[in-house]
Amino acid sequence: MFAKGVTPSETQYDGSNLRILILHTRWNLPVVKALVDGAQRTLISEFNVKAEKIILKDVAGSYELPFAAQEYIKHSIPKFDAVICIGVLIKGSTMHFEYIAEATAHGIMRVGMETGTPCVFGVLTCLNDEQALERAGLGESPAKHNHGIDWARCAVELGVKKRQGWSS
Amino acid sequence: MFAKGVTPSETQYDGSNLRILILHTRWNLPVVKALVDGAQRTLISEFNVKAEKIILKDVAGSYELPFAAQEYIKHSIPKFDAVICIGVLIKGSTMHFEYIAEATAHGIMRVGMETGTPCVFGVLTCLNDEQALERAGLGESPAKHNHGIDWARCAVELGVKKRQGWSS
Amino acid sequence: MFAKGVTPSETQYDGSNLRILILHTRWNLPVVKALVDGAQRTLISEFNVKAEKIILKDVAGSYELPFAAQEYIKHSIPKFDAVICIGVLIKGSTMHFEYIAEATAHGIMRVGMETGTPCVFGVLTCLNDEQALERAGLGESPAKHNHGIDWARCAVELGVKKRQGWSS
Amino acid sequence: MFAKGVTPSETQYDGSNLRILILHTRWNLPVVKALVDGAQRTLISEFNVKAEKIILKDVAGSYELPFAAQEYIKHSIPKFDAVICIGVLIKGSTMHFEYIAEATAHGIMRVGMETGTPCVFGVLTCLNDEQALERAGLGESPAKHNHGIDWARCAVELGVKKRQGWSS
Amino acid sequence: MFAKGVTPSETQYDGSNLRILILHTRWNLPVVKALVDGAQRTLISEFNVKAEKIILKDVAGSYELPFAAQEYIKHSIPKFDAVICIGVLIKGSTMHFEYIAEATAHGIMRVGMETGTPCVFGVLTCLNDEQALERAGLGESPAKHNHGIDWARCAVELGVKKRQGWSS
Repeated sequence: MFAKGVTPSETQYDGSNLRILILHTRWNLPVVKALVDGAQRTLISEFNVKAEKIILKDVAGSYELPFAAQEYIKHSIPKFDAVICIGVLIKGSTMHFEYIAEATAHGIMRVGMETGTPCVFGVLTCLNDEQALERAGLGESPAKHNHGIDWARCAVELGVKKRQGWSS
Repeated sequence: MFAKGVTPSETQYDGSNLRILILHTRWNLPVVKALVDGAQRTLISEFNVKAEKIILKDVAGSYELPFAAQEYIKHSIPKFDAVICIGVLIKGSTMHFEYIAEATAHGIMRVGMETGTPCVFGVLTCLNDEQALERAGLGESPAKHNHGIDWARCAVELGVKKRQGWSS
Repeated sequence: MFAKGVTPSETQYDGSNLRILILHTRWNLPVVKALVDGAQRTLISEFNVKAEKIILKDVAGSYELPFAAQEYIKHSIPKFDAVICIGVLIKGSTMHFEYIAEATAHGIMRVGMETGTPCVFGVLTCLNDEQALERAGLGESPAKHNHGIDWARCAVELGVKKRQGWSS
Repeated sequence: MFAKGVTPSETQYDGSNLRILILHTRWNLPVVKALVDGAQRTLISEFNVKAEKIILKDVAGSYELPFAAQEYIKHSIPKFDAVICIGVLIKGSTMHFEYIAEATAHGIMRVGMETGTPCVFGVLTCLNDEQALERAGLGESPAKHNHGIDWARCAVELGVKKRQGWSS
Repeated sequence: MFAKGVTPSETQYDGSNLRILILHTRWNLPVVKALVDGAQRTLISEFNVKAEKIILKDVAGSYELPFAAQEYIKHSIPKFDAVICIGVLIKGSTMHFEYIAEATAHGIMRVGMETGTPCVFGVLTCLNDEQALERAGLGESPAKHNHGIDWARCAVELGVKKRQGWSS
C-alpha cells in the first residue's frame, strides 16, 4: 500500500573514525554468520569503517548478549562507538523463545541507555527457519534481504551522532 | 456507546516559549512523515510554538527511539521542554513487531521518568497498513485522524506544566 | 463459589489530614469522570478528606499517568499522601491497548516504589465499552460498581499507613 | 511421568529467631485467609517461629503488595527476615488480571532484590475459582494443597540463609 | 534446513581457576538433578574446573533464583566467576508458569548486569513433562540432550572472559 521497510538516512555518515563491536551468538550459526558478514561488509564498504576497528566477539546465545555487551562496553579501550548485537532466535516447541526474546530485547535497550553507547538490536525473532534465512539474505525467497546491512547503517549513524555530541 | 477518543484539555496552553524535539523513525516513512507533519503543524498553529524551536531528528527504527531521545535530552542546549517520539510499527510475519513494540513502549516511558522531560509515545502499533494510514490521517477511511495532532497537544500540555513547575 | 471482590478493611481510617492527588486522563472522559466522582465522593464522605485537599489534575492519556504522577509528587508542596491514577483503556483494533496498558501498569508501580508515595492503579483495561461502564457504576448491568470507590479506600489506607510510618 | 511439585529442602531450618511479615490482600478473602493460615501454622509448627514474631498486615489488592512490602521492610524495627506476599488473582472478563499479575510478579521480585530481604511470591494467578480453592487447600479436589505451607517453608529457608550471611 | 542448535566456541577455555555456583531449584527435582549433574560433569571433564570450586546451593523455586543468586554473589568469598541458575518450569493449569517464567528471565539477567558476574539462564520453560525430560537428556526421545552441558560451557566462557577483563 505504501513503500514498506526502512528508508536510509539522507545523510551520508563517515565511519572512518569509529570503533565498532559486532557481538554475535553461536546459535543457528550459518544464519548468524551471514548477518555478521552483511554488517561487516556494510561498515567497510558503505561507511569506510576500518577493518581493524571492527571487533568481533561471540557468546553462546542471545540471552548472553546484553550482559556481554555491557561488559565489553565498560572495559573497552579505546571506547566502542557502537555495538551491534546479532542473534537468531527461532521458535521451538517450548516457551524458551518467548522468554529469551523478551528479556534480550529489554536487556539490549537497557545496556544502551545505561552506558550511553548505542546498542543495535540485531536479534531475529523468527517463527521458522525460512524466515531466518530470508532475513539473512539467504535462501530462495524473492524478498530476501540481509538485515545485517541495516544494522550496520544504524550503528554508524548512532555512533557518529554520539561522536558529534548529539547536537540539536 | 459514549463519546470515544480523547477530549482536548479545557486549558489553552501557550507554547511560544517551548523548545520541542520531534524524533521520528524512517520505517514506513510516508506514514511517519504524515504524523510528523500533523504534529508540527499543530504545534505551530494551535500553540504558537516557534517553527525554529521545533527540532526534527530521525533514527532508523522505533527500537532506537528511547536511546536517542535520552541522548538528545541529555545533550540539548537549550533544554527541550518535551520530546515527541514518532514511529510506525506494522505487524509482519515474525515476532519482531511484538518485541520491538514492548521494549519501545517501556523505554520511552523510562526516558521521560528518568530525565524529567516529557516524552510522548507517538509509536503506532498496527496490525496492517490500513490501520496505520488511518491513524496518520491518510487513506479513505471515514474514521481517519492524524494522531500527530494529539501527540503535539500532549507535548505542549506537559511541556508547559513542566515549565510551571508542576504546581499543585 | 465464594464471596468475590474486595473486602473492605476492618480498620476505619481517618483521612482528615490527608492531601490526595486524583490524576486522571481525558480519554473516554464520561467514564473517567464517573470514576473520578466516585473516588472524590468516597474520600470526602467515608474518610473526611477535606475537599480542598483533594487536588484534581488531568493528562491526555494513560501512558502519561506515571510520568505526570512522578512529577506532581516530586514538586508537591505540601506533599501528597497518596495519588490515585485514573484512566480508561478500551481495546481497539490495533495493539495500542496492550502496549499502553502494560507500560502504564509497570510505570505507576515504579513511581510509587521510587517516591515512597502510594500510587493507586485506577486504570481500567477493558475489552469493550460495556465493561468500562459497568466498572464506573454506569449503564444497566446489575453487577455495576464504581471502582473509584475502591481506589479511594485504597488511597486513604495507604496514605494513613504512610503517615503512621509503616509501623509493624 | 516423574514426581511433580516441590521437594522440601533436606535441611531442617530453625526459625525461632526470625521475624516474618505476612502481607496479604483482601480480594477473595476466604481463599486468602486459608493461605495466610496455612503459612502461619507452618511457620509455627514446622519451624518454631514465635507467634508474636509473625506480623500480619493487609492491603486492598495484589497490585499494592510490592509497594507496601517495600515500605514495611524499610521501616521495620526490628528488621524483617522475610516477607510473604499473599494474594489471589482470578481471571475476570477484562484484562485487569493480566496487567495486575505481571506488574505484581515483577514488583515483588524487585523489592526483594533492592532491599536484600527475601520476598516470597505468594500470589495465585488462577483462571477460575476452583483452581484458587484447590491451591488454598479448600474444596473437594483430591489434588488440593495449601500453597501457604510452601511459601512459609521458602520464607524460613531464605530468612535463615540471610541470617547466616549467604555463606558459600 | 540448516544445522540447528548452538555451535560450541572455537576457543578452548581453561576453567581450572574458576569458582562457580550452581544454584538450582527443588521443583521437578529429578529433572533438575539431571541438569545439575550435566553441568557439573561438564565443568569438571571439559574445563578442568576443580570439584571443590563448584558450589551447589538450592532454593525452592525458580522465582527465588534471581534473589538468591544476587545474595550469594554479593556475599561470596572468594568471588564467584559465574553462576548457573537451574530450574524446570512446566506449564500447569493456571497462569503461574507464565508470570514466574517472565519475572525469572528478567530477574536473572538483571542480577548479571548489576553485579557484573555472569549468570546463566538455565531455566527450562516447558509445556509438558516430555519436553523437560528431553532437555535434561532423559527419557526416550532421539533428540534428547542435556542442556546442563551447554550452560556449563556458557558459564566457563563468560567466567574466563571476565577474568581476562573483557579485553577487546
